[in-house]
Amino acid sequence: MQPIKVYADRRSQPSRAVIIFCRVNQIDFEEITVDLFKSQHLTAEFRKINPTGQVPAIVDGRFKLYESHAILRYLASVFPGVADHWYPADLFTRAKIESILDWHHSNLRRGAATLVMHTALAPFLGLATSPDAVKQAEKLLMQSLGRIESVWLKDDAKFLLGSPQPSIADLSLVCEIMQLEILIWMDNVKKATSPHFEEAHELLFQVKASRLNNAAAANQTSEPSTKLKIVSKL
Amino acid sequence: MQPIKVYADRRSQPSRAVIIFCRVNQIDFEEITVDLFKSQHLTAEFRKINPTGQVPAIVDGRFKLYESHAILRYLASVFPGVADHWYPADLFTRAKIESILDWHHSNLRRGAATLVMHTALAPFLGLATSPDAVKQAEKLLMQSLGRIESVWLKDDAKFLLGSPQPSIADLSLVCEIMQLEILIWMDNVKKATSPHFEEAHELLFQVKASRLNNAAAANQTSEPSTKLKIVSKL
Ligand SMILES: N[C@@H](CCC(=O)N[C@@H](CS)C(=O)NCC(=O)O)C(=O)O
Ligand SMILES: N[C@@H](CCC(=O)N[C@@H](CS)C(=O)NCC(=O)O)C(=O)O
Repeated sequence: MQPIKVYADRRSQPSRAVIIFCRVNQIDFEEITVDLFKSQHLTAEFRKINPTGQVPAIVDGRFKLYESHAILRYLASVFPGVADHWYPADLFTRAKIESILDWHHSNLRRGAATLVMHTALAPFLGLATSPDAVKQAEKLLMQSLGRIESVWLKDDAKFLLGSPQPSIADLSLVCEIMQLEILIWMDNVKKATSPHFEEAHELLFQVKASRLNNAAAANQTSEPSTKLKIVSKL
Repeated sequence: MQPIKVYADRRSQPSRAVIIFCRVNQIDFEEITVDLFKSQHLTAEFRKINPTGQVPAIVDGRFKLYESHAILRYLASVFPGVADHWYPADLFTRAKIESILDWHHSNLRRGAATLVMHTALAPFLGLATSPDAVKQAEKLLMQSLGRIESVWLKDDAKFLLGSPQPSIADLSLVCEIMQLEILIWMDNVKKATSPHFEEAHELLFQVKASRLNNAAAANQTSEPSTKLKIVSKL
């Protein structure tokens, strides 16, 4: 059998979830890097694989698929070697896992991705940031982390829903939370090189700010509270 | 067999999707209204059903479930009377439907829900709105509608993915788009009663704005372009 093709950028959390899933389940795959920073996801060639222009996506023979959760479900279903706990056949257990997977998008994912975008990536990509968006994302993120703890990990569960082994929902959510490390790391570097870090970046941000004609972009970058609160929560 | 309990507010699009699904598939259910405007979703009693405090949720015997997509998958799987096209057993067709269901959350749903919240509901609920959020939501919504048309409904498909019959993805997405009618309707009323509508609301918005100490809330409400663009797109 031909290995499946996994189109991924390892900087992307859902990409990593798919790659880890393949490795841990010994699914033979070829990794094709789609470099987001080089806009390789926007090429006509990649749009033939995924018209929405996002990673991850897979190609299995003639079959193309995108959206990491759909990919994880598909892989768990078609590869007989995948242990049941990843995506249980039992309808009730499966339904509870689906519930977490669905919840993820508008909660943990939305909070974390928005926060990383606005506080870490936007300034480097020359995109506008807004303090309001950051505040909202932070709130959503904290609420989401709280919910994971109090609902699906309650009573010191080892994995979500008190399962003794992980499911695709554990994998998806953990990869998202790992992304927050980028904030912690940036904060570490900033502190270790302060005040030179801020000084050296001042001009950069002034240039971006005026280029964007958006003063908000400049203020945003000197807001350490976000990262600190997350560090303490993690 | 006991009918399942469906906790819903019909003003909520995922609630409606679940209710329609039950009716069309003759699934015996008891509808329990959770009035969002009366904050009934925030009671301790409802949190025992759904700790995230959102509608819809179902109770089937001792089994509780929330997240509309998880509910729709579950109902399609446990009720033998549900025709296969709603949630096909074929792994490839099912995977494509999962992909749309997953895509929905961060695209059509996010765009539409944010827009309805900021342009229609927020002023009445006394919540802050922001022109930036509206602009972004509008962009995401337009992009999402475009994608539905060009990808999943291409070549004049009758239903998503060119299927001759609807799936749970059709139902979920259409209920979301119907929600936009609230914007059209509000715009109709506003136009039919102009300029008295604006005048009569001016004070309301001034009060809210100062209460919120957020000037953005006031400007937002006299922005008709959003609704008009959506009307023309629909
Ligand atoms: N819900 C999707 C999210 C995919 C996603 O947001 N991918 C990002 C990288 S993490 C991407 O490709 N972004 C590029 C873009 O949206 O233009 C999934 O789980 O696969
Ligand atoms: N992804 C969820 C969305 C549920 C949702 O957003 N419900 C809204 C009504 S449309 C709600 O209960 N809002 C109250 C709240 O969030 O406090 C689903 O599909 O069931």
